[in-house]
Amino acid sequence: MHAAGRFKRSRIPPEELTAKLCAGDTVALSRAITLVESTHPEHQADAQAIIEGCLPHANRSVRIGITGVPGAGKSTFIEAFGKYLTGLGKKVAVLAVDPSSTLSKGSILGDKTRMEELVRDPDAFIRPSPSGASPGGVARKTRETIILCEACGFDSIIVETVGVGQGEIAVHGMVDFFLLLKIAGAGDELQGIKRGIVEMADAIVINKADGENIRAARKARNEFSRALHLFPPKENGWVPRVLMASAVEKNGIPEIWELIQDYVTVNTENGHFAGKRTAQNRYWLIQTIEERLKARFYEDGQIKKLLEEAFSDLEHNKTTPFKAADRLLRNWKRNS
Amino acid sequence: MHAAGRFKRSRIPPEELTAKLCAGDTVALSRAITLVESTHPEHQADAQAIIEGCLPHANRSVRIGITGVPGAGKSTFIEAFGKYLTGLGKKVAVLAVDPSSTLSKGSILGDKTRMEELVRDPDAFIRPSPSGASPGGVARKTRETIILCEACGFDSIIVETVGVGQGEIAVHGMVDFFLLLKIAGAGDELQGIKRGIVEMADAIVINKADGENIRAARKARNEFSRALHLFPPKENGWVPRVLMASAVEKNGIPEIWELIQDYVTVNTENGHFAGKRTAQNRYWLIQTIEERLKARFYEDGQIKKLLEEAFSDLEHNKTTPFKAADRLLRNWKRNS
Repeated sequence: MHAAGRFKRSRIPPEELTAKLCAGDTVALSRAITLVESTHPEHQADAQAIIEGCLPHANRSVRIGITGVPGAGKSTFIEAFGKYLTGLGKKVAVLAVDPSSTLSKGSILGDKTRMEELVRDPDAFIRPSPSGASPGGVARKTRETIILCEACGFDSIIVETVGVGQGEIAVHGMVDFFLLLKIAGAGDELQGIKRGIVEMADAIVINKADGENIRAARKARNEFSRALHLFPPKENGWVPRVLMASAVEKNGIPEIWELIQDYVTVNTENGHFAGKRTAQNRYWLIQTIEERLKARFYEDGQIKKLLEEAFSDLEHNKTTPFKAADRLLRNWKRNS
Repeated sequence: MHAAGRFKRSRIPPEELTAKLCAGDTVALSRAITLVESTHPEHQADAQAIIEGCLPHANRSVRIGITGVPGAGKSTFIEAFGKYLTGLGKKVAVLAVDPSSTLSKGSILGDKTRMEELVRDPDAFIRPSPSGASPGGVARKTRETIILCEACGFDSIIVETVGVGQGEIAVHGMVDFFLLLKIAGAGDELQGIKRGIVEMADAIVINKADGENIRAARKARNEFSRALHLFPPKENGWVPRVLMASAVEKNGIPEIWELIQDYVTVNTENGHFAGKRTAQNRYWLIQTIEERLKARFYEDGQIKKLLEEAFSDLEHNKTTPFKAADRLLRNWKRNS
């Protein structure tokens, strides 16, 4: 309601906002993102018009996903990495996908002071996770925000997520390169990281490889390198690499950027870069369709009742999953 | 048509077949499974009646999934393992889930002579993968067959699949314990195994650990043990183990059975054994519902046309996945 009130007085026509945004105006960008994040129907209509206007100017960037458990040093790493990129003349946007923040209404990037230098850098744009949306909603809004940032001239998009929820699967589905940030621990290297994340990574960076940590970091790097070779190669033939970095001492950052550039070069040449983006677009189309089909089904009052009965019958071995499904679908057909 | 013709002459009332089956008659069991596998509506009606009659007598078994690439020695291993179990007084059913066989109309267990000894064992029952069904159909039929086998008194159910297709995900969703069979190779330990399979395993058995292979097998065992520790623990707290075996020399088989018994004991005590079966039932219920909801949508002629358009628009950056999904769903709502 707050956002709605703010815009009622001063609606900027979508064409005007789009033109400003595409000319590199980050105030216009912020405003467009706020429209994307709003649930107000008028704002959504404007947002969709802006996105459509931005589409021809989007898609020219490298999208980098970064995940890691709290404590892995994500903010410090992103600050060091982002500053390195702006130093090379890049324009860097940092977005966050944090479905859990929708509960607390907070955000991992909400406290921008954690990236003090980057936030003051005119070539960097930092935007916290949209709040008050479902996990699917956060993913949608972040993907649309990426398009806006690209149209605004940002050529390096960093999407941050906490590696403990469902966010990293969503992020993996919207970036070109997925980086898992880790610190060397006491043996249980992956504690707190969900199963499957390691397999998704295009690179693992052992962060905080400095001072007394160096030995442990080297050990972790070697262990992960060995373990990654036990996995079958990825579809695009890329073999994930393990690197060490110290965001505090600013060590290892150029090597990570070099690796990402290698990845982009190799995959652009063999067609997998564009292929992955097309596949991701199709994935989100199918995903969105199916989520809504399911929502229509499960939100039906009669279905809710029958599903409860089915669960109970299954628990007491009175039916099979397939017979119960038949019954539910027959009822749905009749009603819909 | 063949099966339909055969039964037209001699239909046995479902109650009669159920009674015989529950008394341990494997001829009745075979016949009931043929009904389950048939697509003929009358056979399906009989099959569902029999399954319902069997449900109160089912569920008393340990269900073991075994996967491995061709060449890992699955048949020889299952023969040795099965014979060991019947030697302990167990009744062993061996089923196969092999979606690929539905194309060739063949089956990995079709050539029963590959398990010569087990096939002659009166306490063993071997059934090849149902042919002529979709992957989803194979999974459904196999799950229903498990119920029939359990009601017939089989207390050890082995479900075999080739670790190269989608079969292993289906099998993982219908067994209590999932075993990945491997052989020591020349470095690329997991070649041919799909990503994610290693994470699904409750145990990895390095097979053919005999003769000149022993050294390589030990190396592979150590590598996998180390790698598995890098994964976060499973939901039930079970830490997967790596064992060695020689099915030919019949080494390591008792240790594997001991491990499975440990697993069953621990998980029965902490409630995860029953909990996993309940979760699997729910999974198959939801899975079946959603597959059919999607089928109804995607098989619609109008939707097919619009989807093609959406894919093309996405490829040319003319729309976003979310806008395209909106358009498709609005059309579906109008028509259905």
